[in-house]
Amino acid sequence: MNTDPCQIQLTPDGKLKHFLTTEGLSKELLTEILDTADSFISTQERDVKKVPLLRGKTVVNLFFENSTRTRSTFELAAKRLSADILNLDISKSATAKGETLMDTLWNLEAMYSDMFVVRHADSGAAHFIASQVTPNVAIINAGDGRHAHPTQAMLDMLTIRRHKGQIEGKVVAIVGDILHSRVARSQIHALKTLGAAEVRVVGPATLLPRDIEALGAKAYYDFNLALRDCDVIIMLRLQKERMQNALLPSESEFYKLYGLSTEKLALAKPDAIVMHPGPINRGVEIESAVADGPQSVILNQVSNGIAVRMAVMAMAMSGQQSMQQQAQQDSQEEDPV
Amino acid sequence: MNTDPCQIQLTPDGKLKHFLTTEGLSKELLTEILDTADSFISTQERDVKKVPLLRGKTVVNLFFENSTRTRSTFELAAKRLSADILNLDISKSATAKGETLMDTLWNLEAMYSDMFVVRHADSGAAHFIASQVTPNVAIINAGDGRHAHPTQAMLDMLTIRRHKGQIEGKVVAIVGDILHSRVARSQIHALKTLGAAEVRVVGPATLLPRDIEALGAKAYYDFNLALRDCDVIIMLRLQKERMQNALLPSESEFYKLYGLSTEKLALAKPDAIVMHPGPINRGVEIESAVADGPQSVILNQVSNGIAVRMAVMAMAMSGQQSMQQQAQQDSQEEDPV
Amino acid sequence: MNTDPCQIQLTPDGKLKHFLTTEGLSKELLTEILDTADSFISTQERDVKKVPLLRGKTVVNLFFENSTRTRSTFELAAKRLSADILNLDISKSATAKGETLMDTLWNLEAMYSDMFVVRHADSGAAHFIASQVTPNVAIINAGDGRHAHPTQAMLDMLTIRRHKGQIEGKVVAIVGDILHSRVARSQIHALKTLGAAEVRVVGPATLLPRDIEALGAKAYYDFNLALRDCDVIIMLRLQKERMQNALLPSESEFYKLYGLSTEKLALAKPDAIVMHPGPINRGVEIESAVADGPQSVILNQVSNGIAVRMAVMAMAMSGQQSMQQQAQQDSQEEDPV
Repeated sequence: MNTDPCQIQLTPDGKLKHFLTTEGLSKELLTEILDTADSFISTQERDVKKVPLLRGKTVVNLFFENSTRTRSTFELAAKRLSADILNLDISKSATAKGETLMDTLWNLEAMYSDMFVVRHADSGAAHFIASQVTPNVAIINAGDGRHAHPTQAMLDMLTIRRHKGQIEGKVVAIVGDILHSRVARSQIHALKTLGAAEVRVVGPATLLPRDIEALGAKAYYDFNLALRDCDVIIMLRLQKERMQNALLPSESEFYKLYGLSTEKLALAKPDAIVMHPGPINRGVEIESAVADGPQSVILNQVSNGIAVRMAVMAMAMSGQQSMQQQAQQDSQEEDPV
Repeated sequence: MNTDPCQIQLTPDGKLKHFLTTEGLSKELLTEILDTADSFISTQERDVKKVPLLRGKTVVNLFFENSTRTRSTFELAAKRLSADILNLDISKSATAKGETLMDTLWNLEAMYSDMFVVRHADSGAAHFIASQVTPNVAIINAGDGRHAHPTQAMLDMLTIRRHKGQIEGKVVAIVGDILHSRVARSQIHALKTLGAAEVRVVGPATLLPRDIEALGAKAYYDFNLALRDCDVIIMLRLQKERMQNALLPSESEFYKLYGLSTEKLALAKPDAIVMHPGPINRGVEIESAVADGPQSVILNQVSNGIAVRMAVMAMAMSGQQSMQQQAQQDSQEEDPV
Repeated sequence: MNTDPCQIQLTPDGKLKHFLTTEGLSKELLTEILDTADSFISTQERDVKKVPLLRGKTVVNLFFENSTRTRSTFELAAKRLSADILNLDISKSATAKGETLMDTLWNLEAMYSDMFVVRHADSGAAHFIASQVTPNVAIINAGDGRHAHPTQAMLDMLTIRRHKGQIEGKVVAIVGDILHSRVARSQIHALKTLGAAEVRVVGPATLLPRDIEALGAKAYYDFNLALRDCDVIIMLRLQKERMQNALLPSESEFYKLYGLSTEKLALAKPDAIVMHPGPINRGVEIESAVADGPQSVILNQVSNGIAVRMAVMAMAMSGQQSMQQQAQQDSQEEDPV
């Protein structure tokens, strides 16, 4: 069975049918996602925010890891596409009664579900489901272990494009706990594909994975240096729950070295924008004056997140449908009456 | 007050207005449920799965016993009928503040609810609500104690009819913990009414209730013997939480005697189908090769479950509405202007 | 910034844009709420209960204090207005990850939310959010600390008006734990504004706040005396969780003095109505024979609650929209092309 992550996401004619990772997707496809999301931003600003693209479809929010914020954005995106949505708290479901995860997924598929939005603590979970379990259900990866968080990366791309006009040629710094960040990996892939001039990853040596430069990013231990000529500064959340204590200096020490203060921000380009995936730890990664200041686009990211999620949901559903129509046609041609 | 279970479920002209049990319902009515469900299967396979039959109606999922799977199937069925659905976790609600169950139900009725889907650990709970508490709200029994689980039984009937053409004349074995199974009771009533040739209940003496033959089933302690000439094998879930330890041999002992292995399956008719209400305990009641094999229709049961639930919800709502319209007409005739 | 509670609730031309308190609202506006609610009662009694007034709008249920009953009534009201609704269990959300409440609210606003229904244990929470945090999102107060519960008060007004024809000239007794009751405060303001002849607050000295007469109510320690000539008796729930033990006589002592028994009820006007916000403690505040008797309108209150919530949601949304359209026009006039 084909397990190449890029191929699995696409129909034979190159349309999206799952959205698992930004890795390996073409510039054209990533740009199509951004263009589609742009069109949904205008529908969000209308009186009636709903569009009927997923009317009559069933989307299941499968959150094996709790995340009210991410779940809510997918729920809203699904509702604004007019889908029906089923929120499943997996810890309480039949898997707790001894049923295997695969049985749970096959059961949900048998209920005529059309799309699973999956968050899981294990890297590769969404990919496994799309390749091995329910390939005919559109799978959207809402974060898997340390691996990927592609909708977060694409909402960041949309935010950069809307505020800086384009991604091509921009200098972008990603700052903080790169080691445990699924977001950083997805961002680097997208930024490189979309033509960013330079992607800098910034943090203490213990939080910069050794292989990060293989992805095309440049490692910086000195935040001051990394900020020079920056167009975009992406602060990561300090995920205390993901770090072993040894790796982390004290919070105040961390803030002094890698927190984004007004003084630090002045080292970047004067029109640099400040981003953060949220929820922010004020005074830990970022000073309140910066988070709430004129260069911050943190709340724009949230708005763009709804539009990007609507875009990938609509595109993956459309790709799945064209696959199934093709399969039906093929079986009719094989089996003429 | 009339408390005959059959009468309570029906309008004076014999239409369904609650769905509490398969016991006592006529062959014609059970067949109407199956025919209606069949028509919903075709709507499920369309691009837009929704039909507007319950548009503007409010369905309340009242689960006093947690069951994510069953609750989800009713939620999806309600949404595909275009109803609004309210999920109530009763343990957290006002009943915890000292309000009586009856007050909670009267309050929900006063919020203009049209239908309650009730699961309760006590046998007779749904029946009590329909007869004594809120007779003008359509009550659907989603499982009450050891008593009945009629929608599960009817989805099983639908599955048999769709795979074997008809129920009349078929030999059906129900295997496992008959004693604690509300499903088995509902299945036996439906199978007998719909004309099954023989219903065999199979299990250790401690798990076969003494009165089961009074329902028209034949008790077998020897699984091998019971499988001979079988058209349909229905495995029950081993509900460990429902059994006192003394009644249950070890899991491996149980599997050896009453688990469905490939070897055992070969003793039935070659075209016998294998069913299970789920969630399955692989290697406890059923071998994986059988659960996933060509004779298994376990996932078809899940799909049919949505259609059957849509059918009984639509039929009960229609029966309730005709009752209320009749009541309005009567009161106008009594009270002419 | 303007923090006058009345002004904050209204647009410059006097329309509702938040609903935080009954205090300071005009008789005209309160009457408009009741008239609008009356019109929704007739839609509730139709086959299709939904109206499209909030189609495409997103309502977020922000319950910092758990209340299944109140949350459900707002959820049903929102759905019957055709809104999309997001239920947030705040204790599980990002605030638990160290995010501030303000950040959570700004994030929800950035997701293009149109309305927050807020319940909070702190007096003034809804008012703070409307004045300081998200003034462009319509805020509906679903109960804040001991301060206000204005939708409960207005459903009580609707119930009095529908059963007694009018509020003007009526004698109303509010009985029980006035001290901890946000409902009582909101009721007194509404009753005085709508022209009640006399508002009597009744309870033991320890549960009657000293300043209550400043609101225009008259304090009674003797329930028998307070019942004389009463048109309306509003029993409050004995909120054990809100009281320090010292303030409360034993339950049986309380019932003897301030519980509404059949004998007590006979002291009021013969056509007096009996109300209670629910959930009722049978035998603690009220005798079952009274709660279920012909003078009880307790379940009517529940039905009226849906209609009142639909009314204030529709009115506040309309007020917010007119504000935003005005703001858009103004910015276009400032900035002509």
